[in-house]
Parts: sequence; C-alpha cells; structure tokens
Amino acid sequence: MSAPDPRPLAGITVVDLTRILAGPYCTLVLANLGARVIKVEQPGFGDFARGIGPFVGGKSLYFAALNYDKESIALDLKREADRALFDELLGAADVLVENFRPGAMARLGYAWDTVHARWPRLVYGAASGFGQTGPLRTRPAYDMVVQAMGGVLSLTGPRGGPPARVGISIGDIAAGLFLAVGIQSALVKRARTGEGSLVDVAMLDCQLAILENALTAHLATGVVPGPLGTRHPNIAPFQVFEAGDGERLVICAGHDDVFERVCAALGAPGLAADPRFRTTDSRRMHVDALESELVTLLRARSAAEWLRILGEANVPCAPVNTVADAVRMPQVAARHMVVEIDDPKIGRLGVAGNPIKMSGVPERESRRPPPDLDADRAAILARLRRG
Amino acid sequence: MSAPDPRPLAGITVVDLTRILAGPYCTLVLANLGARVIKVEQPGFGDFARGIGPFVGGKSLYFAALNYDKESIALDLKREADRALFDELLGAADVLVENFRPGAMARLGYAWDTVHARWPRLVYGAASGFGQTGPLRTRPAYDMVVQAMGGVLSLTGPRGGPPARVGISIGDIAAGLFLAVGIQSALVKRARTGEGSLVDVAMLDCQLAILENALTAHLATGVVPGPLGTRHPNIAPFQVFEAGDGERLVICAGHDDVFERVCAALGAPGLAADPRFRTTDSRRMHVDALESELVTLLRARSAAEWLRILGEANVPCAPVNTVADAVRMPQVAARHMVVEIDDPKIGRLGVAGNPIKMSGVPERESRRPPPDLDADRAAILARLRRG
Repeated sequence: MSAPDPRPLAGITVVDLTRILAGPYCTLVLANLGARVIKVEQPGFGDFARGIGPFVGGKSLYFAALNYDKESIALDLKREADRALFDELLGAADVLVENFRPGAMARLGYAWDTVHARWPRLVYGAASGFGQTGPLRTRPAYDMVVQAMGGVLSLTGPRGGPPARVGISIGDIAAGLFLAVGIQSALVKRARTGEGSLVDVAMLDCQLAILENALTAHLATGVVPGPLGTRHPNIAPFQVFEAGDGERLVICAGHDDVFERVCAALGAPGLAADPRFRTTDSRRMHVDALESELVTLLRARSAAEWLRILGEANVPCAPVNTVADAVRMPQVAARHMVVEIDDPKIGRLGVAGNPIKMSGVPERESRRPPPDLDADRAAILARLRRG
Repeated sequence: MSAPDPRPLAGITVVDLTRILAGPYCTLVLANLGARVIKVEQPGFGDFARGIGPFVGGKSLYFAALNYDKESIALDLKREADRALFDELLGAADVLVENFRPGAMARLGYAWDTVHARWPRLVYGAASGFGQTGPLRTRPAYDMVVQAMGGVLSLTGPRGGPPARVGISIGDIAAGLFLAVGIQSALVKRARTGEGSLVDVAMLDCQLAILENALTAHLATGVVPGPLGTRHPNIAPFQVFEAGDGERLVICAGHDDVFERVCAALGAPGLAADPRFRTTDSRRMHVDALESELVTLLRARSAAEWLRILGEANVPCAPVNTVADAVRMPQVAARHMVVEIDDPKIGRLGVAGNPIKMSGVPERESRRPPPDLDADRAAILARLRRG
C-alpha cells in the first residue's frame, strides 16, 4: 500500500468550466496544491486559450503555461447526454469553477440555487468581470478593461506620462488568486457545516482590493494619485537608479536605519543626518532632493559594483532583471520555481513552479503535460464508473 | 442565543507577527473572511507601517488600509514574561503568521520545528523575500527588490523605454495572497490529518508564479520580452487608444467574433476580413498595422462616444479611470467595494471592501478601526483567562 498523498488538497476534485486566464489560473493554483482538476471544455475548440500564440508543435504556449496537471473532457452542455455526464461529474466533485458571463450558467440550467439544491456539499466558484450583482454584471470584461476601470493603469507608467499596462495580466491573476482563497475558505466552512457555498469573485472588485493605500489615501486626502515611474508613493528611496555604467539598479530603504546604511555604503554618511532626510516621513516629503543627491553619488561606480557594496551593507537592492535573467537565478533553481515538463508535442516545456512550499510535501518529480482537448475522456469515464 | 457567525473562517484565530505589507495583507484577507487576527507588535513602535505617511489625526493611512478588523497587543519576545503570554496565545490559536527574515524566529526560540513539537495543530505561515531555503534566503527584500529581480519590472513601462514600477505593491500583494492560499490549504489538510504545516512563501517565487505566459514563452522560444506600453504580448487589439478628443479608452478583442464587432462598431466592417487581421494569431503578428488602422478610425469621435457605441456592440472596453473615478463607480458601490469605518482619530476612514462575496454571508455593517498599539491587551488577556 502506498503512502497517502501529502499534498494539502489531495482528495479534492474540481470540475473546471473556465477559459483563458482568471479561472484557469485559480484551478492551476488548486492543482499545484494537490486537487484533481477536470477541465470540461466545449467540443471542437475548447478553452479559447488553445488559439492564442505563440505555438510550438502546434500547441499554444499560453494554454500550456496555465493548464498543466489538469485533465480534459469535451462536453456540450446543451446536449442531453453530455449534461447527464456533467451531472455525474458534479455528483462526484467537491468544487465547480466557472468564469462565464453572469447569467450563462442559469441559461444552461446550472444556476447556483439549482446546483446547490441537487449537490448541497458542492462549492461553486464563479469568477466574472464585474460579479454576479450590480449594474455592470452582464458587461464583458478582459484583463485590460479592469486594469483601466479599477485605477491600477492610472498608477503605472512614467512620471507625468501616459499609463502603462502592468506587464502581466494582473486583472485576471488577482481575481484567480482571490477565487482560490474564497474557494478554500468555503472548503474550511464546509468542514464545519457540511454545506457548500457560492463564491462570487469579480475582476473589478479585486483591482479595488489591491489598490491598498492608494484607495485609502485618496479618500482621506482627496489627492488623485498618478504614475510615478519607478518610485513608491510613500517611501523613499524605493526606486530604480542609473549607475555610472548606465545600468540600472533598485535601492530600497523602508526605514531609517536602512537609509543610514545606504548613505554609508555610498560614501556619504552625512546625508542621513540631513534634516530633510532623517525620517521616513521627511524623506517622503523631500523625495526630489533625495533622488538628485543619490543620482549624483551613484555615478561613481557601475551597477554591479554598487550591488556588491550595498549587498554587503545589508541594504535591500537588486538588478533590474529580464525574464531571461530571472529564470536563471540560482535562488529560483534552489526553490524549484521553474519546472520542466516533457510534453509530447512541445518537447521540453518550462513552466512556473508552485510558490507555496509546505512541510511534509516534497517537490513533485514530474507533472502531467497540458492535455489535448478531450484527451482524458476514457479515463475520466472509467473512474466515474468505478465510483 | 445568537446565530452562529456565517463567515467561512469564523472560529479561526490567527496570531500575527507581521509588519508592513505582505504579511498584514495576508492577515487582512483572513480577517475579511471571519478569522480573529491578533497583531503581536514590538513595544514602543509596533508595525513599521505605523510610521509611513500620510497621516490623519496622527494615524498612518498606510497602516489603516491594511490593519482594520484586527486586534493589537505589544509583546517583547525577548522578555520572559511576554514570551509566556505569547505561548498562551499560540496555545489558543489555529495559525501563526510571521514575515521576519529567515532565521529570526529560530533565534527567538520559535522555529517551525520547536513550535510544531509544542503545538502540533498550529499552522505556521512564513512570508519572506526569498524563502526559508536557497542562497539568498537571508538577504533583505522589499517590494521593488522582487519586482526588479523577478522580471515584472522589465515587462512594465513604455514600449522600448525605461521600466516602470507596477503602480501597486505587487511584490508584497502577490506574496500575501499566495500565503493566504497556502494557510487555508493547510487548514483543509489539518481537517483531514489533525496536524498543522509550515507554509513557506517567498516574494520572489510569487513574482515567477505570476509571470505566466512570459516565462513559458521565453523558455520555449528564447525571446526576451520587454515593456509594451499598454499592449498585451499575445492578443490584439488589447490596449489603450486615444480618441478624437484626446481622451483615452481601452478596447479588447480576445477572439475573432469580438474583433468583428469592434470593426463594425468603428464603421469599418471590412477590416475584419483583411487576411492580416482575420485570426487571433494573425492579428498578433500584424499588431503594428492593426494599431495604426484603429488609431485612424478612432479619431472620428470622442472617447465617451466610442465607449457608448462599443458598449452597445458588446465589446469589452473601458475608460482609463483614476483612483478617484474608480472608487465612485456605481458598480463599486453595488458591490460594497469601498467601505467606511468610523475611526476615533482619522474620522471617516475609507478602505477597500472584501472581494470574496459568499452565499449566506451578508456584507458587514461595521468594522473595527485599525487598532492603536497594544489597544486590545486587556481584552485579549481577559479572553485567554476565560479559556
């Protein structure tokens, strides 16, 4: 007899109707924690992400990045026979996740109330652009729509310049993470009450939830924040600088003793005693003057030299890495944050590892490649029949 | 007898040693789900966030945004009497969360092994810059350090220009969310096994985990991605445009039928039949030509007019909202995503609401204001004594 699976969500089965990003990101997080995730896809084309390039061996890398370690079955929820199968899957599942436009599940006969009446223990996770309620609930949304509506875009970009997109799909990813949090909290509640819950997560709501201080400070002071280049709105120094060789580095001083170490390392210990720069709050108010002092001092050496000196002085600092630099960091290797999957079509597929490291749960040695559409039908049905 | 608290984490007690952002963000998420969060702070100054401006009524708004609905007690973990009290708190808790530099908890006598031996059911969540393992584990990190090291900074900013910071603290927030996911998965596991786990989340790891397709595409193709202004790396159109009045709007077409609707709404239905623009993949490869076609068409009307026309055509589109615009959206009000707290010093404090909406869990009518340092000592001790 083999040892029980030590992963935290071992034994949890997720039926996954989601497409593209927020939903699949959520179920990838759950799969990484040990849940069994069954993607139920539209016959013919499946998850729209399968059509997003670039492609290798005819397979979308975009799809691959988000759907490894999942199974796939194609079901048409408008056909009776497929609905019967889908019902069987729900009967054997712990969680249903969907990210259709609100109202679509009801039209298919799978509104929360109906599902809850039939399968009272099932947790029902729904991600959408604007949520199941409110005047915009049926409006279509994508990542950039909520980045723009929620205000994050207005905070990102060069100081005084046009907005820039957050270089990753933070509109989808924030929603995917909050949905994973919500679904798991519903599992915790189910362990106590025996009942499943509807978890309703809106991409726009999540953008508000990650504004943190920008929202609170605006409401208290009326000041409308704009993009700040690489500066932090409240803390200084906390930004990118250019060194003498034109290369960039980040220097952060979150509180006064770190700032003293910055000044000493840069050969200007007197700067820390300057009344304009003595406290977190005074540095925030004199950030322009502080920046120009540091810009001048940093011209004396290359970025690599400064990073060595600042690192030895225990100052939080960093190079500005490309993705190519980042994935090759020894720290990233030590943490298994890039994992390789042997995919029959793509060949060696590199994906991000699981950032949740847990005692008693070893790193996985292999992972299932992203499934072709309907690839797991026979195995899924056989397992249902076995009960 | 009052009804049981319907919130999913009701009955869960969290002892919270965290400071500034990643940890407090995590415990705020848990508090929003019904956990009782007890902040254990350093006597004298407490959470460093208390010193970060702007201030209203002498209270940090930065601290307030992240610490409402929590209790505070000041304990010096180097003093015997305070350690005894801390041990009592741990004995009555379900979760301990800390974000000290790796090694610091061991020096205080609260390494995972020690804690687990004494309180085997306790879940131990640890957030750090680089994690509990690997060559960089003891290096200091802040948000901008991991934004820069992990590659997200290199993807954000004007096309071909210098990097821009993601306008929110995505380095901390991603780690806070993954830690909340990990802690809850450990609670699910504890319900099955009776045992707590260590959850080790690194800010850098989380940056890799949110790169999604950028990481996978780089490893497969060798292409090093850079900043793209407001464009999406794989999908077009999916960006900010300027309208005839100089105002900006976002237009997104994730697949072909949406693109057809975009072209029809802009009065150029023939564009959708252009072989360069017919599929998701062909639009991606001809994004420059597509952009210039759309820029020309959009000059004909104001952004407000286009948003009305595109909205009626069911095209995902959005204005580029400031934070001031975002918090005043009727949709945001309908979803209770800005909530007001009556704070004795700040007055009316506005904070982000809980983005996890759950069946059977009504919106809260009031929330505890962010605590002064040590404000809840008497109540916390009285509750411990009652058992």
